Amino acid sequence: MAYNELYQYSVVSALMEGLGETGLPYKDLVAHGDHGLGTFRRMAGEMICIDGEVYQMKSDGSIIAIDSSAAGTGTDVAPFAMVTRFRPSITTNFAFEDKQGFSDALSRLFPKSKNRYIAFRVDGLFQSVAVRTADGQRFRHEKLRELHRRQTTYEFTNVRGSLVGFRSPEFLQGVSVAGDHLHFISEERDRGGHVLDCKSAGEIRVSASILSTVHLELPGDDDYNEAELKLDSDGIRVVEG
Amino acid sequence: MAYNELYQYSVVSALMEGLGETGLPYKDLVAHGDHGLGTFRRMAGEMICIDGEVYQMKSDGSIIAIDSSAAGTGTDVAPFAMVTRFRPSITTNFAFEDKQGFSDALSRLFPKSKNRYIAFRVDGLFQSVAVRTADGQRFRHEKLRELHRRQTTYEFTNVRGSLVGFRSPEFLQGVSVAGDHLHFISEERDRGGHVLDCKSAGEIRVSASILSTVHLELPGDDDYNEAELKLDSDGIRVVEG
Repeated sequence: MAYNELYQYSVVSALMEGLGETGLPYKDLVAHGDHGLGTFRRMAGEMICIDGEVYQMKSDGSIIAIDSSAAGTGTDVAPFAMVTRFRPSITTNFAFEDKQGFSDALSRLFPKSKNRYIAFRVDGLFQSVAVRTADGQRFRHEKLRELHRRQTTYEFTNVRGSLVGFRSPEFLQGVSVAGDHLHFISEERDRGGHVLDCKSAGEIRVSASILSTVHLELPGDDDYNEAELKLDSDGIRVVEG
Repeated sequence: MAYNELYQYSVVSALMEGLGETGLPYKDLVAHGDHGLGTFRRMAGEMICIDGEVYQMKSDGSIIAIDSSAAGTGTDVAPFAMVTRFRPSITTNFAFEDKQGFSDALSRLFPKSKNRYIAFRVDGLFQSVAVRTADGQRFRHEKLRELHRRQTTYEFTNVRGSLVGFRSPEFLQGVSVAGDHLHFISEERDRGGHVLDCKSAGEIRVSASILSTVHLELPGDDDYNEAELKLDSDGIRVVEG
């Protein structure tokens, strides 16, 4: 794939329905990008892909570096992932007080982007980052809304690290997560998760690029084929907001 | 592109909003597929792409063979198109009484496909085919619902020809047209349009394949970037049904 094209495996509506048994092998994921996010088999934790390295951030606070060069087994898969070969078109510095402040500043960088995707990354010192991590499905097809009820949350303060994320168009809610969806990992790769809120410590580095080309891979397994996929906008906002 | 991958330019929600000034050059369209459908600048008629040939089926009943090898100008563009390099996985024969009967039979051929795309083609003698053709926008950003009010309809009887179409997943309504979307052209390439209804003359040849890989190209022009895109399911059913 060329730089700054989005590769997405499956759709968020399938995750909402609890389709977590099968997915994209890790080695295929990193073949399509070096920057991204997603989840793991049975939604066991949060995935971040940064500089081509993949990490599993689990609800017990542990972080596992994934060997994505290995052939892997049927359990070494991502039921949902978004990745790109990231080459920022803009790199700048700004401060933000919270996640909304970050989003507003990003919108000012790309005033003409609301109907396309944006890939972005933020690196530096954060005054605080609040994250959640999903603790995984307890039974087959357990829905994301149920998992959400027992997610683990952490707040990190004065932490160096990186945000990796995507902004998705509002009209693609259900395919992707409309709006900003971002995961965090610390510089030491020992803390992280799905970002609920974040505050920079002064101005920190923000790099981003618009993505206009989307490669969407729809799963072919029976779980996917038999699912009743429908758009649950409110549910997605609760679970992925 | 590999066989049986869907290449789509823009989204149906953008067409509904009347974004018809710019689009994909014809030569880029045929570079991505030999089978497909779409529309023309300012929604002037219906597009069918069959065996790599592109035709513009206009509301006055005329049909223009497009020279897609030409470099073209800024007006030689498709604001919306779906194409694939079609290689059917199933070729069979069946009869159908109407469009719904065709859809039901196609569903039986592919019982596990409702969350993926299907490309299909039907060739042979039709007892009847009812089509409509859009007569084009009369002003910039005229919406598809308005154009729909003055569409021209034709009914052809005992006509040899081909249907070219796609089935799109329900949950991708707004990106594509959910359900079956098909255009017709006669064997003599002198009649055709967007199919409202169709009845085969006995059993005729049907070929089809599932498409799991989608390449979606989001436009980058100001019209697209500034549009308020939202899902109008009812509107799409009225206009594209």
